[in-house]
Amino acid sequence: MSPHPAPTAPRPPLRVALAGIGVVGGGVVRLLETNRDLIARRAGRTIEIVAVSARDRHKDRGIDLSRYRWEDDMDALVAADDVDVVVEMIGGADGSALTLARHTLGAGKALVTANKAMIAHHGLDLARLAEETDTPLKYEAAVAGGIPVIKAIREGASANEIARVYGILNGTCNYILTQMERNGASFADALAAAQAEGYAEADPTFDVDGIDAAHKLSILAALCFGTRLDIGAVAADGIRGLIAADIREAEALGHRVRLIGMAERNGDGLYQHVQPCLVPADHPLAYVPGALNAVVTEGNFVGRLFFEGAGAGAGPTASAIVADIIDIARDEYGPAFAMPVDSLDAAPVADAGARIGKHYVRLIVEDRIGVLAEIAAAMRDAEVSIESFIQRGTDEEDGVVIVLVTHAGPARAIHAALAILAGSDHVVSTPMLMPILAL
Amino acid sequence: MSPHPAPTAPRPPLRVALAGIGVVGGGVVRLLETNRDLIARRAGRTIEIVAVSARDRHKDRGIDLSRYRWEDDMDALVAADDVDVVVEMIGGADGSALTLARHTLGAGKALVTANKAMIAHHGLDLARLAEETDTPLKYEAAVAGGIPVIKAIREGASANEIARVYGILNGTCNYILTQMERNGASFADALAAAQAEGYAEADPTFDVDGIDAAHKLSILAALCFGTRLDIGAVAADGIRGLIAADIREAEALGHRVRLIGMAERNGDGLYQHVQPCLVPADHPLAYVPGALNAVVTEGNFVGRLFFEGAGAGAGPTASAIVADIIDIARDEYGPAFAMPVDSLDAAPVADAGARIGKHYVRLIVEDRIGVLAEIAAAMRDAEVSIESFIQRGTDEEDGVVIVLVTHAGPARAIHAALAILAGSDHVVSTPMLMPILAL
Repeated sequence: MSPHPAPTAPRPPLRVALAGIGVVGGGVVRLLETNRDLIARRAGRTIEIVAVSARDRHKDRGIDLSRYRWEDDMDALVAADDVDVVVEMIGGADGSALTLARHTLGAGKALVTANKAMIAHHGLDLARLAEETDTPLKYEAAVAGGIPVIKAIREGASANEIARVYGILNGTCNYILTQMERNGASFADALAAAQAEGYAEADPTFDVDGIDAAHKLSILAALCFGTRLDIGAVAADGIRGLIAADIREAEALGHRVRLIGMAERNGDGLYQHVQPCLVPADHPLAYVPGALNAVVTEGNFVGRLFFEGAGAGAGPTASAIVADIIDIARDEYGPAFAMPVDSLDAAPVADAGARIGKHYVRLIVEDRIGVLAEIAAAMRDAEVSIESFIQRGTDEEDGVVIVLVTHAGPARAIHAALAILAGSDHVVSTPMLMPILAL
Repeated sequence: MSPHPAPTAPRPPLRVALAGIGVVGGGVVRLLETNRDLIARRAGRTIEIVAVSARDRHKDRGIDLSRYRWEDDMDALVAADDVDVVVEMIGGADGSALTLARHTLGAGKALVTANKAMIAHHGLDLARLAEETDTPLKYEAAVAGGIPVIKAIREGASANEIARVYGILNGTCNYILTQMERNGASFADALAAAQAEGYAEADPTFDVDGIDAAHKLSILAALCFGTRLDIGAVAADGIRGLIAADIREAEALGHRVRLIGMAERNGDGLYQHVQPCLVPADHPLAYVPGALNAVVTEGNFVGRLFFEGAGAGAGPTASAIVADIIDIARDEYGPAFAMPVDSLDAAPVADAGARIGKHYVRLIVEDRIGVLAEIAAAMRDAEVSIESFIQRGTDEEDGVVIVLVTHAGPARAIHAALAILAGSDHVVSTPMLMPILAL
């Protein structure tokens, strides 16, 4: 009943071409060289790099590429008769990465990519192309680096209706947040430290504003819910607005601050939001340290699954890329989003305001008579029920820090209260609003 | 290049027979009924139960089986023309479960099983049979219940050389240990509570003596290291010897006690041991509560991966079983142990005494002059270097509790020291020896 060749039949090598040899590409070369024999045993055939291509042939990459054919033109990888799989590690949602991906799949060759931006923006088109040419399209490395979470959801949890998927999808932000936790550092100082350590880029926008996490979340949501990938429907708030007091007050409330990407089925709609959240101390996400990533799924039979590991870096990313290549070598693959593109649902965007939950609100206000009454009135008028109210009496951040925790209620109410307070002369800076993760 | 049928071709239903309808079997029926449409979308075809078989047709199972053909004789499931997959949920290493498994694979039908004892004892023979008939043999549910850890290792981490695999593989023991942690309960009281809650069987031997965890560990080791499954090579110490003071002293040392199954490549040999260990508070295994399971792998490129979820129960186990069935429906499967049986290595058993690490030793001694000197002399004579020594001065367990922590050294030395002390009249009960998990 199996489509697989009999185990005695020797299988020809799987021939791989690498496009884009940066940090990750170097990791893939090293991995395929270091673990060559082991991989051949597991894949049932050898996996051979036959050609490489990148922009600058003469750049020192710290690895010996001389044994592989060099192509200045990436399209030559697609055209070559001796290439079965093209690995795209160029990056960027569009441009030459997308062109190469389209040409590869169009030519009926397998594509492996680590490119979350490209998958988030063009994943459906690429998956359709892969279906038309009956070709594998694999992207394990695009989400949560070395954690095999695409496989865990697509296959491991495939029997379950998933209620929600969420996690720590950006290691840079988690590194910054755990630095703020440990040292009481400001966001700016923690970011500078992360940049010095190589955990954050000179321009950190993609990471700290939640864009990178949004790309990954949109991919997870499509897989979990069988919905059409829709990056435009993902709301993203980053961590720039956090101050040291937020981390401290969260801790005092028995929580930790994490940048959480959350996708949830909400009636007929789909809620997708990346934002800083308060995570209870008895939730495993509260213990994810440094630059690690972690993903949680909640299935109707399996319950909660939790996966943690390195979300970036040459080794972990190469591990995910080569796992995809091994799947292809074994002929163990199927539709990129677990089912044909045409059978994915177009879920409407959920009404985020209707979402029920507890919230953390931090305000910085002027230290004068009447401010407290103003805040209390805004909450009352917006029908926000307050569980706790903390004013420590210290003056920092050019004002007094006030922290509210609401009872569970619709997000819309708290937004309305903040809209009222936005008109106040006494609220010094933009309030910080964080959902409190429900277990 | 794909062996898969074109996506437009409708595929016939995959027809499943269930053997053994207990708690897990009931879960599989409920899952396949509840998530039927979702599973059909993901699998690309419907999955249909066509027949069921169990010992007692008239037992009340709380589910309606009347729509499925009943077979009193399990072999009729194998013989039936309309059965593609047999799901074995009978249990037990041998007997009717093994007979059914052999007949199923011998007849060229796919076998899905949750039976860790059978896989641990007969996995290689069954895998060889599956190869001969080119038939899937899948057993995701046999290890760590709902956590897709077989898939994560076999496929997700397949690019890595794995240095070690370890984890919490028995939910009953973890439940008991976390009860002892929370309440300061004795082992006997915590076991009684676990039995009352349904987390432990009336005869808890398989769980609390580490036998169940040993079965699972042997399977993980074979997958991680490409070695021949060898249940006889797994040492197993359970948790019966733990007293409340062990949990308390571990906590005071910044650790938690967990029953850890650990398999490690050690030179040419393979170390496999299930035993209570001290887990540092900054290791994720220290935060695995209640009846959950968790598995850690350490790969040479991906680094540390951590997987947590429900290790038992109808829903999680059914989730793993049906994931296997979906893989078969998708034609995404390969050799049971990731490579053909004949290419698995026969790794020798590692010299456990040569293993270097820190140890926790707890003694109960008579409260009299000279005992301390006797212990100190035994450690000196065995060349065990002591990092800390704690005697709280309280009299409990009919003696004085003394806790030693050693510096890192070979396990053989500490065993030698305990052998010397075994001859002492002043050591009241069997010492408790626990490795301290290195990060």
